[in-house]
Amino acid sequence: MLDEKILNVLRLNRDSYVSGEDLCKLAGISRAAIWKHIEKLREEGYDIEALPHLGYKLVSIPDSLIASEIKWKLKTKVFGRSVISYRRVNSTNIIAYELAEKGMKEGAVILADEQVKGKGRHGRHWSSPSKGGIYMSCILRPSIAPNEISRITLLAAVAVAQAIRDVASLDVTIKWPNDIMIDQKKICGILTEMKAEQDSVDFIVLGIGINVNIPLKQLPKCATSIKEELASRGEKINLSRVDLAKKVLEKLEEYYNIMKSEGFGPIIEIWKDLSVMIGSRVKVSIHGKAFEGLAHDIDPDGALVVRTESGLLKKVSSGDVLMVR
Amino acid sequence: MLDEKILNVLRLNRDSYVSGEDLCKLAGISRAAIWKHIEKLREEGYDIEALPHLGYKLVSIPDSLIASEIKWKLKTKVFGRSVISYRRVNSTNIIAYELAEKGMKEGAVILADEQVKGKGRHGRHWSSPSKGGIYMSCILRPSIAPNEISRITLLAAVAVAQAIRDVASLDVTIKWPNDIMIDQKKICGILTEMKAEQDSVDFIVLGIGINVNIPLKQLPKCATSIKEELASRGEKINLSRVDLAKKVLEKLEEYYNIMKSEGFGPIIEIWKDLSVMIGSRVKVSIHGKAFEGLAHDIDPDGALVVRTESGLLKKVSSGDVLMVR
Repeated sequence: MLDEKILNVLRLNRDSYVSGEDLCKLAGISRAAIWKHIEKLREEGYDIEALPHLGYKLVSIPDSLIASEIKWKLKTKVFGRSVISYRRVNSTNIIAYELAEKGMKEGAVILADEQVKGKGRHGRHWSSPSKGGIYMSCILRPSIAPNEISRITLLAAVAVAQAIRDVASLDVTIKWPNDIMIDQKKICGILTEMKAEQDSVDFIVLGIGINVNIPLKQLPKCATSIKEELASRGEKINLSRVDLAKKVLEKLEEYYNIMKSEGFGPIIEIWKDLSVMIGSRVKVSIHGKAFEGLAHDIDPDGALVVRTESGLLKKVSSGDVLMVR
Repeated sequence: MLDEKILNVLRLNRDSYVSGEDLCKLAGISRAAIWKHIEKLREEGYDIEALPHLGYKLVSIPDSLIASEIKWKLKTKVFGRSVISYRRVNSTNIIAYELAEKGMKEGAVILADEQVKGKGRHGRHWSSPSKGGIYMSCILRPSIAPNEISRITLLAAVAVAQAIRDVASLDVTIKWPNDIMIDQKKICGILTEMKAEQDSVDFIVLGIGINVNIPLKQLPKCATSIKEELASRGEKINLSRVDLAKKVLEKLEEYYNIMKSEGFGPIIEIWKDLSVMIGSRVKVSIHGKAFEGLAHDIDPDGALVVRTESGLLKKVSSGDVLMVR
């Protein structure tokens, strides 16, 4: 907390030096203690200049998914108000699930720079190389029944897609139910896990993995990253992971509140606007069986409605869906 | 394992003495080691006579929910093949859930003589006094979607009701979705908890609490026990908890296999036969709101269909249902 206090004073005075004396007064601790905190901030990647007689100045801020960066000017009331971040974890979803079982509050977020056992849907692996991605798990405690969990997945897809559009200006789209795509390549995956009784959800862990500044060679074939897509459009930059993670949290809270006050209807409408799937030919695979049809609509619970060859409307709430020619 | 081997030899020779020499040969260990195992069995409640020159004889078997008793002549292939039993636990569901997360196999059963934090639905307490009840949690790994979990709850209700009818000859009935009743008083509760992704269940923990030999004064007002109901019918006995627990496991496996091979239809039919609710006036409470109507049917997913005053059919998949006059 003290680190954050000191950091935020330096942030607010980035054009000038803040004297050690002023920092001491602010924090109510000794010069030596200030020095220790400055050293700790430097270890976290903050470049802080220290000049005799002048004091301290914040020269640069790391693009690190650490609590002090995520919380700085974050425009939310619940999402991201509690942040735990790691350099490297097995899976942020595993950690968040354990914390949720111990009673961790709604909106708490687990972040990591690297996952060694990143989880995809149905026990698949989610490629999570270090330092270029956002690996984030958020704890939710909505008052819904287990069969309404699709709503949360679709809501999250809408939030992440909008966040990427806002921060990176890329025209990403959504592939049912939970992939964010650009030109048919995956840029983000969402894994929703829950603990529930028969008729009520205890908690949901919403896992979000976004390929931000990851080079193509570190990604599976069907995937791409924001950096690579920006580069192919002539923009050679590293996108700020912190800015994007914050925007994702803000959008999540925005849509979550809409869902709570107005129901799921408005979310489905935005989902449809962002989806390229409705109206396309799709191939649906469920439990090893497959069928083709036309993606017709999303039903009020978030299931995909597919019109088969014979004109039958089939509701798809599980399985994998591919767009085909 | 060795305890069980020795025990089973004694079981098969209950009319005679088994010499220490024979027991040594069987187990491939020393006399002193045999003695240690006999002592351990005695601590678990087995009355084993030891006479010089004659050997060992099993005099009586405790009605304890321990692995060796549950597994003895158990007619199942999966359910109860792995049993962990405790004298006293917080909640068998909590332990089973933790083990399931660590990969414990389908059919594994956690049993306890007493629960200090017995769990009911929606965070309620389940009264679990020592030594008179069966507190049992079973791990299931069915290939179903989260919205099909009601099927497991209803299947369990059918299995437990049939087991009580078979072993105790009491005409118990089922109250939707998961209570086993006798004369409007609760004799058993079922709590189904799951870990799931959006479209597939990872595992289910099926918690079953049966009031077997518990005195009325140790139970809540709305509850009764098998012993008390038998006594009021003139039969003053303690029912064997071991026999009942085994029958429950056998019935669970039987109906689970029916569901896997023939679908949920046959289970619903048995459920309806055992239910007193269909055709009765009911009061449904969901999230603090209530309405009355006529319990009309169970739909293919296990939801209760209620006909309201205005003739509307309402599907109830959560909440509490009371039978009213």
